[in-house]
Amino acid sequence: MLRYLLAGESHGPALVGILEGFPAGLVIKESFVNAELDLRRMGYGRGLRATGIEQDRVEFLAGFWRGKTLGSPIAFTIANRDFELRKGKPAQRWRVPRPGHADLPGLIRYGYDDCAPVAERASARSTAAYTAAGACAKALLARFGIAVLSHVTMVGGVAAAGPEPTSARLKRIRKGRPLRCLDTAAEKRMTAAIDAALTDGVTLGGVFEVRAFGVPAGLGTYAHPDRRLDARLAGEIMGIPAVKAVEIGEGITVAGVDGHQAHDEIFPDGKGGVERRTNRAGGLEGGVTNGEPVVVRGFVKPISSQQRPLASVDLSTHKTARAAWVRSDTCVVPAAGIVAEAAVAWCLAAELTSFLGGDDLDVMLRRGKELTGWKTA
Amino acid sequence: MLRYLLAGESHGPALVGILEGFPAGLVIKESFVNAELDLRRMGYGRGLRATGIEQDRVEFLAGFWRGKTLGSPIAFTIANRDFELRKGKPAQRWRVPRPGHADLPGLIRYGYDDCAPVAERASARSTAAYTAAGACAKALLARFGIAVLSHVTMVGGVAAAGPEPTSARLKRIRKGRPLRCLDTAAEKRMTAAIDAALTDGVTLGGVFEVRAFGVPAGLGTYAHPDRRLDARLAGEIMGIPAVKAVEIGEGITVAGVDGHQAHDEIFPDGKGGVERRTNRAGGLEGGVTNGEPVVVRGFVKPISSQQRPLASVDLSTHKTARAAWVRSDTCVVPAAGIVAEAAVAWCLAAELTSFLGGDDLDVMLRRGKELTGWKTA
Amino acid sequence: MLRYLLAGESHGPALVGILEGFPAGLVIKESFVNAELDLRRMGYGRGLRATGIEQDRVEFLAGFWRGKTLGSPIAFTIANRDFELRKGKPAQRWRVPRPGHADLPGLIRYGYDDCAPVAERASARSTAAYTAAGACAKALLARFGIAVLSHVTMVGGVAAAGPEPTSARLKRIRKGRPLRCLDTAAEKRMTAAIDAALTDGVTLGGVFEVRAFGVPAGLGTYAHPDRRLDARLAGEIMGIPAVKAVEIGEGITVAGVDGHQAHDEIFPDGKGGVERRTNRAGGLEGGVTNGEPVVVRGFVKPISSQQRPLASVDLSTHKTARAAWVRSDTCVVPAAGIVAEAAVAWCLAAELTSFLGGDDLDVMLRRGKELTGWKTA
Amino acid sequence: MLRYLLAGESHGPALVGILEGFPAGLVIKESFVNAELDLRRMGYGRGLRATGIEQDRVEFLAGFWRGKTLGSPIAFTIANRDFELRKGKPAQRWRVPRPGHADLPGLIRYGYDDCAPVAERASARSTAAYTAAGACAKALLARFGIAVLSHVTMVGGVAAAGPEPTSARLKRIRKGRPLRCLDTAAEKRMTAAIDAALTDGVTLGGVFEVRAFGVPAGLGTYAHPDRRLDARLAGEIMGIPAVKAVEIGEGITVAGVDGHQAHDEIFPDGKGGVERRTNRAGGLEGGVTNGEPVVVRGFVKPISSQQRPLASVDLSTHKTARAAWVRSDTCVVPAAGIVAEAAVAWCLAAELTSFLGGDDLDVMLRRGKELTGWKTA
Repeated sequence: MLRYLLAGESHGPALVGILEGFPAGLVIKESFVNAELDLRRMGYGRGLRATGIEQDRVEFLAGFWRGKTLGSPIAFTIANRDFELRKGKPAQRWRVPRPGHADLPGLIRYGYDDCAPVAERASARSTAAYTAAGACAKALLARFGIAVLSHVTMVGGVAAAGPEPTSARLKRIRKGRPLRCLDTAAEKRMTAAIDAALTDGVTLGGVFEVRAFGVPAGLGTYAHPDRRLDARLAGEIMGIPAVKAVEIGEGITVAGVDGHQAHDEIFPDGKGGVERRTNRAGGLEGGVTNGEPVVVRGFVKPISSQQRPLASVDLSTHKTARAAWVRSDTCVVPAAGIVAEAAVAWCLAAELTSFLGGDDLDVMLRRGKELTGWKTA
Repeated sequence: MLRYLLAGESHGPALVGILEGFPAGLVIKESFVNAELDLRRMGYGRGLRATGIEQDRVEFLAGFWRGKTLGSPIAFTIANRDFELRKGKPAQRWRVPRPGHADLPGLIRYGYDDCAPVAERASARSTAAYTAAGACAKALLARFGIAVLSHVTMVGGVAAAGPEPTSARLKRIRKGRPLRCLDTAAEKRMTAAIDAALTDGVTLGGVFEVRAFGVPAGLGTYAHPDRRLDARLAGEIMGIPAVKAVEIGEGITVAGVDGHQAHDEIFPDGKGGVERRTNRAGGLEGGVTNGEPVVVRGFVKPISSQQRPLASVDLSTHKTARAAWVRSDTCVVPAAGIVAEAAVAWCLAAELTSFLGGDDLDVMLRRGKELTGWKTA
Repeated sequence: MLRYLLAGESHGPALVGILEGFPAGLVIKESFVNAELDLRRMGYGRGLRATGIEQDRVEFLAGFWRGKTLGSPIAFTIANRDFELRKGKPAQRWRVPRPGHADLPGLIRYGYDDCAPVAERASARSTAAYTAAGACAKALLARFGIAVLSHVTMVGGVAAAGPEPTSARLKRIRKGRPLRCLDTAAEKRMTAAIDAALTDGVTLGGVFEVRAFGVPAGLGTYAHPDRRLDARLAGEIMGIPAVKAVEIGEGITVAGVDGHQAHDEIFPDGKGGVERRTNRAGGLEGGVTNGEPVVVRGFVKPISSQQRPLASVDLSTHKTARAAWVRSDTCVVPAAGIVAEAAVAWCLAAELTSFLGGDDLDVMLRRGKELTGWKTA
Repeated sequence: MLRYLLAGESHGPALVGILEGFPAGLVIKESFVNAELDLRRMGYGRGLRATGIEQDRVEFLAGFWRGKTLGSPIAFTIANRDFELRKGKPAQRWRVPRPGHADLPGLIRYGYDDCAPVAERASARSTAAYTAAGACAKALLARFGIAVLSHVTMVGGVAAAGPEPTSARLKRIRKGRPLRCLDTAAEKRMTAAIDAALTDGVTLGGVFEVRAFGVPAGLGTYAHPDRRLDARLAGEIMGIPAVKAVEIGEGITVAGVDGHQAHDEIFPDGKGGVERRTNRAGGLEGGVTNGEPVVVRGFVKPISSQQRPLASVDLSTHKTARAAWVRSDTCVVPAAGIVAEAAVAWCLAAELTSFLGGDDLDVMLRRGKELTGWKTA
């Protein structure tokens, strides 16, 4: 069973993670984790802190021996450079909650009279630690031929129209394409929409899609509701800040059609196995993987910190006021896609680990070869 | 902390549930649980087994003393009448998996050469136990003025247009309205679509919405990803068979607009508190309730058992064959809405229990009164 | 991961259990579970209810298909015959808590003014459900050559002196030896002590030992405190009513000697492996099994219901009174040993399941054969 | 619910901990945590690394805002000074496992051919992180008047004879008494025994006792086996390296006497409450606290690294060899007592947090005052 605990405030000294349950014998390169962190940090629409201040370098403090995992908990930190820059500058009180943010409900939960302590933890900064955890999961999955990749399919109402998101194409847009949209024409319009929003002082949401290639059939189970893989994926994706809806495969579309247009017929593949010609199910039937790519989509709201602020209430005066604004991003959809890759990778690594058992990578790899129906992208 | 384990096969002797963590002193009437089970069982589009064979009567075997909970685990059974009717009739082998069903991936996971054992557990019949668990959660929530109610907003592409789903309206349609759609004109078209699908031998999906009224601000937290209430709701809703997408509030819509159209501005309510004039966030900001009704939507695929079957493969011959058909439902969206009420009620009861602490209902009620910002519908 | 939830009151309709995580394909015979329940129920020193009223017959309601497990949760009930006999007789209030029982602290926790509802759940009757759960775990372990057996080593101050508790001897005393003590001379003195205690209106405690034979090396891990097998065993054993101390191997003795007398030296076994000539560690080093039999001992207090009662306080009058007495047992040590077998079996089955992975018994068995260092008794 | 994950190797850069579930508003001083770390690190019988190399200074990286907890996860590191000192010196292979250590079973579990990687994690060094976690729990408990204190009652067969371990006495021996034994005459003999063992090249075990004062009645429950506080304490204490037996109250003694000598009679206290004149139950009846001090004892084996080594096997040659020796301690009983305080404090803080609910210290304190039956030492 894989477990994680993540910690860290937006302007505290560092983000910290502990990951428990990884098998012994796995190589996880800091350079790989850092590359993932860079993908999250950058992306078209990001603000100054992400692109100009932070550098997000992971440091492993525990769980390794001569370059390989030990089977003991992995611990890492990611320093907040902003912490050093702010030293000596007192944090300001902050009494006008941002609509859409945890500011107000968080303040009620914890009994604060100030939004600042809420915003320290209820911050997308925390997703850097999550991304590092996901990168470790990806390093494990890679040994089994599983790749988890995302792209952006909509920003601010501009939708991408194609092409088919193969793993090759999704790998290609990880370099030099800060919006990670496969449809170059749509990408230009998305870029323009973000530029316009920045000028207008507002923010934009959108949709990301994550695809996992090479996933064997049989991960997850319908045996108990909380062990369904679709349930775990949905929980993990919805737990990403700003995500407000989650879709598996063509889940929204198939709700509106009849059963003949909703499912993926099964055909003999001529080699003793079966094949599908569609993947509306997103690789999951009954909460179990069926050997097709796992496809999950997340709907991201525009973030709540806006330079042209919404109406709110000053909690000191109980009068209408304009919501606080903090140096922030215009659009986080590409970044959210990277964080969602981490979520999907974590769920798959957890399932794979429990399905194969063993605390030793060599044993896991040997058992993995015995499984029938493994597919690689 | 509330925990549940549920058990039961489609054609086994009974469904069974154990619910751990309820406070002492709560009355849960079997008649109330049975009424919830009836709402799940019936509903326009259901097939013979639900409407003609099963009766779904809960029997509590543990957890009560003189009519009130004891703080010890609650156990219940719901007998399968079909079990008695089938006695002596051997179950048939079943070698052509239904596209969209767990048949094929389940068979791979567990090493079967037959779909029948998969279909025993991967069956919507299991949701009767879940509904009973949710009914127990509702009995607890009711003591705090919280009500969880659903309606159908789309079937087979026919969408409802209104009116505002108040708690009064949602209570009213629980009687004599087997589709539970607030828009009577749309409901007629939905009914007609279901009739046509039945004639055509196909199935229809749709969308349900669950609303929780009277939920206090401050349930859930952004402190750790797995403690966000939106994440827990999404996981629990996606764990319901046939659900393929989950939306919180206007989550899908707000992904396509700018931040000024996406959030719910905050206004003084003139009584020292605040109010909202919109609820696009569905009562959740940063994974924490904000005092507005919690709104969750689920997208339901057409179920995979269809009288006019899809193409599949006979696992004995490895040749194309028509998928098996089992006496079944045409549309389960109203029923799925009732099951989703159970999911939402469970999550809220779990949060409330951990927020208020105590294993004693009187203590919980007293602590509940101290909370500020309680709202009732 | 194996999980269980157990329910049931002492005088309610039934005990209920749900066991989640068993692999598919396992045969668990009701007759085997019933035989285990009989061993728990009987035993020298038991009172009328155990020996004369209850019969403890398990009924499986879920988790099986054609005589084998399905991988879905197993559910069972054990009816309380006393429930039928008591029908119509109102339960009496009970205001004088028994020293040593949960009566008083339970009443404080749950806000009762009566000990009766506490005693409904805080009752050794609940251990029948636990024993049934353990019997299911034993059925799984048996497929891997692992046997879990107990004996009584002390009652009322009378200690057994030998012989070596081999698995053959421990199996033999399961029939016709109601105290299950290997030292027949000591057993006679223990029997006499129980008879004398019954006459005197008091109760007796003692010590049981559980041995697990055939356990492979490598179960459990030091990687995180809560994953150590010794920690899990201790928690599970201490959770048995009346147990107040737990010892692994010669844990108490080795605390008083130097390190040369405390450990088990390692020798080549002449076949490329290693062997031990002592087992002071009780088969566990660093929280991990080392291939030797796992040995756990539990210290059982005399139960708190005594015919010649202790001083207590009447909660109605706040004056000194004699504690309530309920028809009860004189000595439960042999029964506690059977319950402790269930605890040990559960822990080992949980570890084995997670170490071998897979939800399919055939896969687990195949993987089990690959492990080196398996030993059978 | 409180959760922790701890990480760190013996010669890695640092120990790391994340603690999840602490309420907002708590002050935890680094100086207090460091003082607890010093108590663990020092103690009569410790070797060079503990006393001469490490300094064990905690650094909090997350979970705080202006000196108080935020309700978000607390993260800390404790640097290993030895890591810096060893830099550039390659770790040596280590092929002769120490009897009693995880060396051999750990190597089997993880598939190593070397004991060194096992010894990195299976090291008492890890208990420094655990002690820091416990210190945070103590800081919370202190706000409710609960103190958790230990003393040594036996070393190498020399037992302490008294006096009564009151909280005042136990606080007093925390300074200037490196063995923390209340019986000064016995302490001298213990010290002499340790000196002799050091000369002889062997190690010594012993017994520690932990007492928690001021614990309210009603923590823990008999409702489910895994929620009993005695079970949780036993699991947590047995999880401490070198502990091989756990006793609650006079658990070992009461197993040998009759029920009239085993329990604590209940008397009116003349103020409307009740009192006890004995505490054989160690403050726990039925797995629930009864308002008396909680008393837990741990039996510690002599550690397995001995300068005069035991017989073992060289895994390269499969021939008899002398076990490896690493610069190490002669007696760790006083240190284990401090670690066990952390274990008890953690369990009590977890129970208190779930019993009082709330994520806000002020709310918890207010609710705590409403409880009846609070006692302070």
